[in-house]
Amino acid sequence: MMSLLENLKWRYATKKMNGQTVPQEKVDQIIEAARLAPSSSGLQPFRIFTVTDKKLLEKISPIASNQSQIMDCSHLLIFAAWDKYTLPRIEEVFEYTLKERNLPLNTMDAYKETLWSLYATKSEDWHHHHAAKQAYISFAMAIAAAAELNVDATPMEGFNSVQLDELLNLNEQGLKSVLLLPLGYREPENDWLHGMKKVRTPKEEFDKELDSNDIKP
Amino acid sequence: MMSLLENLKWRYATKKMNGQTVPQEKVDQIIEAARLAPSSSGLQPFRIFTVTDKKLLEKISPIASNQSQIMDCSHLLIFAAWDKYTLPRIEEVFEYTLKERNLPLNTMDAYKETLWSLYATKSEDWHHHHAAKQAYISFAMAIAAAAELNVDATPMEGFNSVQLDELLNLNEQGLKSVLLLPLGYREPENDWLHGMKKVRTPKEEFDKELDSNDIKP
Repeated sequence: MMSLLENLKWRYATKKMNGQTVPQEKVDQIIEAARLAPSSSGLQPFRIFTVTDKKLLEKISPIASNQSQIMDCSHLLIFAAWDKYTLPRIEEVFEYTLKERNLPLNTMDAYKETLWSLYATKSEDWHHHHAAKQAYISFAMAIAAAAELNVDATPMEGFNSVQLDELLNLNEQGLKSVLLLPLGYREPENDWLHGMKKVRTPKEEFDKELDSNDIKP
Repeated sequence: MMSLLENLKWRYATKKMNGQTVPQEKVDQIIEAARLAPSSSGLQPFRIFTVTDKKLLEKISPIASNQSQIMDCSHLLIFAAWDKYTLPRIEEVFEYTLKERNLPLNTMDAYKETLWSLYATKSEDWHHHHAAKQAYISFAMAIAAAAELNVDATPMEGFNSVQLDELLNLNEQGLKSVLLLPLGYREPENDWLHGMKKVRTPKEEFDKELDSNDIKP
């Protein structure tokens, strides 16, 4: 079987971790998978913050409803997305890309104009949702990487992002927290979710082939 | 090296495909990875439609700015997310999950109440963005799976979702298209992006360790 399918079957949203430390080399590989994830126009409009300091985790814990994996994880990854797109931010990424590719710095000018003419019409709310969506792709790669390394991870949206942004001064950096990913090791005997059947939408409902006959004449 | 890291380095947003067919077994594995992806509260608020019919692809092509990979791919995957969460939709998923796990059908009632009390306060716009974000996680797993199978894939947001929803009658199903993923095989000699250096935000900018000293006193 494909290794990704095996890894996805092995993983689950670990609710109880045992406090054991994940080797830094593995954490680095997980973050590297997140960094290599594709993103819209290659902008990567998000960053990852890592926390291992117990004092800081104690401050984050109540912001995430005191879910135990915050304190029992080895490393907490915080995904934070740009609050909005701006022309200078886009230009900085494109300029870096062109330099790395040894291409003339005006190569992407027409593309940039088209992109910005689209983004400029959108609300700030749309901007942040769009940037956050790119973080979700990266988040998924981190989850897949952790599973490949037999490291447990708990995908978490359930926290107060406004309070976390305040605690970590993210607004000053033009960022808003969107996702948490505690990394560590499962403690099966104290985890109610461990051993539960993995339930997904049945394949016959999940995907469907469409052809010309399925559409309006 | 980890296989996921190798696969992420191998893949790129293929701009020119050669028309070769991807074996159905591989497509099934890619969709299975997408189906196994985690989602918020396990709701999987999205579906995948597959198109191979050239007549239908011809209708989709102009909706995606006639980008050549729509016609040159082997299979086009269309990710479509719920237009909104509703209590009956959530109840249906939870009931199915509990049945599959042989648990009493009221087991998740308190959780459902809490979840719905949160979702009920949100705008329909928020609902769709949130559902779409779950599709992005699944989309990433499909991209990773394709790469593991040496199948090329082009992550695409650039299409007119309103027109595609209309063509495929997605609104009637409570869905909105959010992402396209053509699957096929690269034609390197005609692909301007092939061979270009993969550029990502440098690691020293992408992630950062935070401790108690970084936060406000």
